[in-house]
Amino acid sequence: MINKKMLMAILLTVLLNSCQSNKPISIEKEFLLSWNDGAAKQRITSFVNSITDQTSSNYVPPGERIATFDNDGTLWAEQPMYFQVQFVFDRVKELAENDESLKKRQPYKAIIEGDNEYLSKLGSHGLTDVFTFTHTGMSNTEFREIASTWLDTAKHPKFNKPYTSFVYKPMLELLDYLRENEFKVYICSGGSVEFIRAFADEVYGIPPEQVIGTSYKYEFINNDKGISINRTTEINSFNDKQEKANNIQLHIGRKPLVAVGNSDGDLQMLQFSASRTGSSLQLLLHHNDAEREWAYDRESKIGRLDKALDEAVSRDWTVISMQKDWAAIFPK
Amino acid sequence: MINKKMLMAILLTVLLNSCQSNKPISIEKEFLLSWNDGAAKQRITSFVNSITDQTSSNYVPPGERIATFDNDGTLWAEQPMYFQVQFVFDRVKELAENDESLKKRQPYKAIIEGDNEYLSKLGSHGLTDVFTFTHTGMSNTEFREIASTWLDTAKHPKFNKPYTSFVYKPMLELLDYLRENEFKVYICSGGSVEFIRAFADEVYGIPPEQVIGTSYKYEFINNDKGISINRTTEINSFNDKQEKANNIQLHIGRKPLVAVGNSDGDLQMLQFSASRTGSSLQLLLHHNDAEREWAYDRESKIGRLDKALDEAVSRDWTVISMQKDWAAIFPK
Repeated sequence: MINKKMLMAILLTVLLNSCQSNKPISIEKEFLLSWNDGAAKQRITSFVNSITDQTSSNYVPPGERIATFDNDGTLWAEQPMYFQVQFVFDRVKELAENDESLKKRQPYKAIIEGDNEYLSKLGSHGLTDVFTFTHTGMSNTEFREIASTWLDTAKHPKFNKPYTSFVYKPMLELLDYLRENEFKVYICSGGSVEFIRAFADEVYGIPPEQVIGTSYKYEFINNDKGISINRTTEINSFNDKQEKANNIQLHIGRKPLVAVGNSDGDLQMLQFSASRTGSSLQLLLHHNDAEREWAYDRESKIGRLDKALDEAVSRDWTVISMQKDWAAIFPK
Repeated sequence: MINKKMLMAILLTVLLNSCQSNKPISIEKEFLLSWNDGAAKQRITSFVNSITDQTSSNYVPPGERIATFDNDGTLWAEQPMYFQVQFVFDRVKELAENDESLKKRQPYKAIIEGDNEYLSKLGSHGLTDVFTFTHTGMSNTEFREIASTWLDTAKHPKFNKPYTSFVYKPMLELLDYLRENEFKVYICSGGSVEFIRAFADEVYGIPPEQVIGTSYKYEFINNDKGISINRTTEINSFNDKQEKANNIQLHIGRKPLVAVGNSDGDLQMLQFSASRTGSSLQLLLHHNDAEREWAYDRESKIGRLDKALDEAVSRDWTVISMQKDWAAIFPK
């Protein structure tokens, strides 16, 4: 028989153990609720169970649990065009309100008039110039505010909702699940680092220091207006393809234990992660859900997924089928 | 009278509260034990008490508690020459064992022969070339291993002890004190990022992803030997002066709440921190202890402290007097 004293002693022991383990008392939470039961979810959970199990040969200590996520097409949508390109176009229209000359100069004229034929021939060089025009010549503080205001007010052209409505619910859950398992989660994106920082903390819970992105060279200014760091027109790093792996080395200095992407631009990041000594997990999101989102891969101009899909299949990386693996796409 | 039941109820309440606050039960630890009571210690503790006090107008939430530390002359010694320069010299001698031609070519000949007169005229350009010669042309993994081996085996010429013996005990305590108060602590150094990563985790408890330093441009390699990231001979960033602030913006994206340095190379980092909206703390270590360490400032070739000392005095930043504020310099 258990008497009251014994019961109290047991209760105290449980509580003390719980306190000593430095964790709050909690009923085990359920994670990944928007993921259908299937190969992708099963691989994710068994990987995480294995690397957090101290008795497993795959065990990885918390400090080494680094996960890197691409942003466009991985954490949020990227159709019908990269959201940051829409930001650039909106910004050109805004600047034209105080600068009539833009309405007469290409490619600004085409942007303002919505001349898609002209814009489709712009090429990456032309687009880079428009990025530089809208993204430089101010301090980082000013730029982040401009981005922030746009994110708060602009609406997706097709759905008339803020762009931050188009983050993927299953990915938010994956971020939570990894963090619950003591991962440090980074974004490693082709988007501009300060553009992403303008919303990453609020929307993804990812702080500024865990965002790696495309950057311009900076210039430290100390004048009668005070201290600021200005954005020059010289590109410091275009964080795509090889450069994603290079910048992970520069900023993090470790190979990611988990890497998550959706396009050929993420291939080298996934390869870098897969070259880690010991266990690692590579996830590739396949946009194959024309009904609930978009379906595109090998022939797409945006988020082209061709070589990375072949390599994922041949190396048995985990391909996430948006259609089959996700019970929900966007938060309500 | 308190009976057993009541006592048990009180005990349970205390334990439950402790568990819910997600902190282990602990007796308050003593910090900064190698710091003498004086203005520097007093300012540090009152600053930390104020920004961690939720009822204070200076309160700063944990996520924003970023501290950046210079390394050479701030976290460890830098005399009679920067330790990484000694590493470069030792490396040249090692490479000369398999490459006789180095013994005939300047400046390698001077390094091998210890021709200090020649070396004193080398200038920063000449030194940069020797750095590049010893620091590039291999993968980052290989370089970190080379640095690691040197740190494990090389001895300081004056004291015949490993270089990592010359970390400052009061600074190790300051790192611990800040981390205990939920700071995220970074190194921001003119030294090479991968050189510092070779010992920062073990010696300072600072993980690779919290080290910002001088870097070469990287090149992603995928060949029959596998994946690696090679160090090219092109400098990516020389992390000194203005560039320290620029790189803090790039890597962290926030102004440091606490910045700690010892030389004019740290001035812009301190200015950047001081420009933070709300409270912030700037610490400048003054090497004025010829008996226990070294005494040098305005005229020194290594770790020159001139403009930053003037600005610290005029802006009432906290100058740490090694002689007066530190009860101990190095760990036993």
